[in-house]
Amino acid sequence: MKVKDIGEFALIERIAQIVEQADERVILTIGDDTAVVKKTELDYALLTTDLMVEDVHFTFKSITPHQLGYKSIAVNISDIAAMGGLPRYAVVSLALPPETEVAYVEDLYRGMAEVSRANDVRIVGGDVTRSEKLIINVALMGEVEEEKLSRRSDAQACDIIMVTGELGASAAGLRLVLHPDIEPKVKNAAALKMAHFQPKPQIKAGRILSSLGVNAMEDISDGLASEVAHICEASGVGARIHLNKVPIAAGVDNVAALTGERAIDLALSGGEDYGLVFTLSPHLQGAVERAFAEAGLKVTVVGEVLEGSHGITVIDWAGAESPMKQSGYTHF
Amino acid sequence: MKVKDIGEFALIERIAQIVEQADERVILTIGDDTAVVKKTELDYALLTTDLMVEDVHFTFKSITPHQLGYKSIAVNISDIAAMGGLPRYAVVSLALPPETEVAYVEDLYRGMAEVSRANDVRIVGGDVTRSEKLIINVALMGEVEEEKLSRRSDAQACDIIMVTGELGASAAGLRLVLHPDIEPKVKNAAALKMAHFQPKPQIKAGRILSSLGVNAMEDISDGLASEVAHICEASGVGARIHLNKVPIAAGVDNVAALTGERAIDLALSGGEDYGLVFTLSPHLQGAVERAFAEAGLKVTVVGEVLEGSHGITVIDWAGAESPMKQSGYTHF
Repeated sequence: MKVKDIGEFALIERIAQIVEQADERVILTIGDDTAVVKKTELDYALLTTDLMVEDVHFTFKSITPHQLGYKSIAVNISDIAAMGGLPRYAVVSLALPPETEVAYVEDLYRGMAEVSRANDVRIVGGDVTRSEKLIINVALMGEVEEEKLSRRSDAQACDIIMVTGELGASAAGLRLVLHPDIEPKVKNAAALKMAHFQPKPQIKAGRILSSLGVNAMEDISDGLASEVAHICEASGVGARIHLNKVPIAAGVDNVAALTGERAIDLALSGGEDYGLVFTLSPHLQGAVERAFAEAGLKVTVVGEVLEGSHGITVIDWAGAESPMKQSGYTHF
Repeated sequence: MKVKDIGEFALIERIAQIVEQADERVILTIGDDTAVVKKTELDYALLTTDLMVEDVHFTFKSITPHQLGYKSIAVNISDIAAMGGLPRYAVVSLALPPETEVAYVEDLYRGMAEVSRANDVRIVGGDVTRSEKLIINVALMGEVEEEKLSRRSDAQACDIIMVTGELGASAAGLRLVLHPDIEPKVKNAAALKMAHFQPKPQIKAGRILSSLGVNAMEDISDGLASEVAHICEASGVGARIHLNKVPIAAGVDNVAALTGERAIDLALSGGEDYGLVFTLSPHLQGAVERAFAEAGLKVTVVGEVLEGSHGITVIDWAGAESPMKQSGYTHF
């Protein structure tokens, strides 16, 4: 059964049933001109949006509808995590060819519902329209306390730089998708692909860090190198990254060897890991490590913030210092 | 100069300069992971979103970038007007071919900035990405007092039905665009095309009406017939529309005669007029008319709400009653 067989309104009804979730704060959900929610309790509202276009960000072959739906919401939740905030309400715009299978759309929204429920997000409205290619736009509203807000521009000279989790898994997972022939030679291929398709937004880690008073924070969407560069540029500081300290996910070296790349490059520039990179006063390091150990989460020191805008350097395994390559994704 | 010549970050900087507007409530605007705004003062937050795709909703030839930008924001503001609310903060996702002229993008955002400033909206963030066709998604956050919220489902049997402004101008303007040969024969062609390209969201009218306590309210995006049908379906009531009372904009009859259509059909089903249609207890009619006269706005009674879900009928000029044709736009 195709979307054109059931029409716009029946499609919206099916979507509403999939994403429906009781919430006394939601006054009006899918079906009126706008969604209506009770105002957020915290000081600040957060607003973020992300657009995914078929054949630019994904292809029908490269990702299942469930994964695509999951990811479209997850990347927005990750932006809220980077502010130290809590995600709350999402509106989803969907454009698709009339020949799209209704089951495809339902799986898409099941993926959205999965990550939304796991992160206390409600999908409260949206827009459905026709187009040649599949297009998904998610706008997400969150909230944060004034004193917990972590800005990109808050890095201070002499801060240390830490990252949550491990890096490179998403990039390695993408390579497994692009080169399925190497998959049998990689031990934890499934976990690496999962990291690529269904990244876990780090809301819990972000809340711990914002409560402890870290300075600048970013989610690692473009790769560690790019995110550190963004922080440094916004904060007017430099940075030094120690390559031997960068936590690389298991199996990334395995994949890199098979594709003729370096694991450290996947970790630094692969992107889409959606962990958090943050800077903090050194005296907070112990508190962060204790809080993360208690929460069962991993956190690692990878470098230092340096005074002045003198760029970012890396210290390699031999102790030699060189300017960091920045190869984060740019759209044009 | 093309977008690919200056790259993503330089483009975002230019956009930020165009939409920048001082506002002490905006804590972080374009340039961080999310926008941050002080929480809204009123009880409820409103969230709406709208996606426009090249060759589906517009073509490069059919609309100037300024008009396109204006319209992309205006249709969202109109949804907030329909709730009786105040629009506040927008995030804009833009996908475009790398070969797009930078000047085109700047004009697009100038159009967005124009209607945003006129309606006290701040563009606080967004997403820019590459695609084959131009895609614009706007998500808009607004606010409203609990007691002023107008739901689609609030129509009551014995309510009267009123509309703001005049109808059919946008549809007539669209016909002038599609058939430029008839333009010289139409007196107020410029005004009709303006109504199509730069509709005025009725925030002021919506606020007057929500303060006076009208019942159901909708903005007229799909055409009066469709909007009344939506209200009736959501409220479990019927309705009767008097064709001789429907306020038709000047020049619509002129255009309709030239295209072989009926002016009343453009008014009932043309859509995109973005006035408001609402139902209210008859005893409020005088108060609404006085408030609108004071504000220099037009408002007209066009029909009545009827008990029970017996559909919608029209009374024609001869006094004959017949079921109303519903020909609002559906996307599939």
